[in-house]
Amino acid sequence: MKILRFGAAGAEKPGLLDKDGTIRDLSGVVSDITPETLKNGAIAKIAAVDPSTLPAVDPGVRLGPIVEGVRNFIAVGLNYVDHAHETGAAIPSEPILFNKAPNCIVGPNDTVTIPKNSQKTDWEVELAIVIGKTASYIDEADALSYVAGFAVCHDVSERAFQTERGGQWMKGKGSPTFGPLGPWLVTPDEVADVQNLDMFLDLNGTRAQTGNTKTMIFGVAHLVAYISQFLQLDPGDVITTGTPPGVGMGMKPPRFLKDGDSVRLGITGLGEQQQTFRAYKA
Amino acid sequence: MKILRFGAAGAEKPGLLDKDGTIRDLSGVVSDITPETLKNGAIAKIAAVDPSTLPAVDPGVRLGPIVEGVRNFIAVGLNYVDHAHETGAAIPSEPILFNKAPNCIVGPNDTVTIPKNSQKTDWEVELAIVIGKTASYIDEADALSYVAGFAVCHDVSERAFQTERGGQWMKGKGSPTFGPLGPWLVTPDEVADVQNLDMFLDLNGTRAQTGNTKTMIFGVAHLVAYISQFLQLDPGDVITTGTPPGVGMGMKPPRFLKDGDSVRLGITGLGEQQQTFRAYKA
Repeated sequence: MKILRFGAAGAEKPGLLDKDGTIRDLSGVVSDITPETLKNGAIAKIAAVDPSTLPAVDPGVRLGPIVEGVRNFIAVGLNYVDHAHETGAAIPSEPILFNKAPNCIVGPNDTVTIPKNSQKTDWEVELAIVIGKTASYIDEADALSYVAGFAVCHDVSERAFQTERGGQWMKGKGSPTFGPLGPWLVTPDEVADVQNLDMFLDLNGTRAQTGNTKTMIFGVAHLVAYISQFLQLDPGDVITTGTPPGVGMGMKPPRFLKDGDSVRLGITGLGEQQQTFRAYKA
Repeated sequence: MKILRFGAAGAEKPGLLDKDGTIRDLSGVVSDITPETLKNGAIAKIAAVDPSTLPAVDPGVRLGPIVEGVRNFIAVGLNYVDHAHETGAAIPSEPILFNKAPNCIVGPNDTVTIPKNSQKTDWEVELAIVIGKTASYIDEADALSYVAGFAVCHDVSERAFQTERGGQWMKGKGSPTFGPLGPWLVTPDEVADVQNLDMFLDLNGTRAQTGNTKTMIFGVAHLVAYISQFLQLDPGDVITTGTPPGVGMGMKPPRFLKDGDSVRLGITGLGEQQQTFRAYKA
């Protein structure tokens, strides 16, 4: 299934994309897609419904983030062999984890704001995991059973905030609108091999990032199990799993985002996002 | 006011501590203390009530965390001059920020679990700030008006996970139960000078940490304003502001927590916590 949320920001309804590409209204089936409803079996309730019986929605509707009320929004750094090489960093011996602020999550096609005082706002196409049930100290062999689904995540990053302002990376990862998430939450049964998905990101119509999840250093199952050794993953938590090569800071000379830039990104089977970047205005 | 939550874990009700030290039931006034109710004026609603008209509660009741559903739980590292010296670290030129997992928050006297495979679980008494209204790019001069109140936070830390497992500190800061928060949320009107509060932490009855918020490198107003440049602070978000000297990793030889250890900690005017530490059991 491809589960989504549609409507005005802050007033989204749950929906799904049926096999013909029509958006269907799920608000008669589940109240919303949240940590609480995921915990209470939202995915099973949706799976039990015949999509053709649901009201069709205007195809031009705004799409919201695929889940509302995320608490742990965890990101993995330098998780693609080819991206680690481009940044000049060593291959990590264990996953590098950091946090994105959960309230930076926005819809897949919403405008992204370049933060006040930013000079180095950069792009990163990533595969995100949404957790479906509570995971603590789980084994890698069981890890995929804790996953509700997968989605495209744009891990927008401010490189100066991330690495030049002292200490930890989270300063450059959580500015408002820095987490476009969607267009859909794709359940694992629709993803034949999550470790073999093509990824791309275009800047103003020119290809910038090209990658495949097969070059991940630490795969999806390993990451879920690994993170669960350090904190409890709850339904609705999101893990974004790192980016392939082609980010702006890796270009010679580096190229960062400016007012009016347009970014399109996607992953095979998980859909596409498109954002316009705008300078911060008070 | 001293606002609190009482009752069984997961089923807490809102309450307050009146001037005589009696816990009063606020569930007829506000549904709970959450990001949503704080946003909708919970503090003002509570302030408008005469505590003596509220039902008294059994003084032996369990206290829960002071706010439910926290999303951003942000911590400040090396923020006391004397603690920075004890760790051998340089004085930071800007605040060092990292995240604690919001689902590690527990009540002030709940049992804390030493994580599986932990050898270096350590203690840190801290002053926490709870945000009362949305703050983005705010000035230091206005920052205190965004604060709902203050509380004691125990920033329990696993030093090996924090610093020996690659990359970022959050791995050692978010294990389940690593965030006792309370006993009360004390509104700013009851705190004469937040930058002059004595702090202590006793391990098995022996003083380990002694400090005062006046030795903070970056004060409360600066921290709130500073963090708001990097992410949006929302009602119910928590910032824990760093620890004074006396942590276990600073002892010679280092002393870490083990099954059965008892920790008591407190801050003048903000109350005390007491936890028993227990080894993880599957």
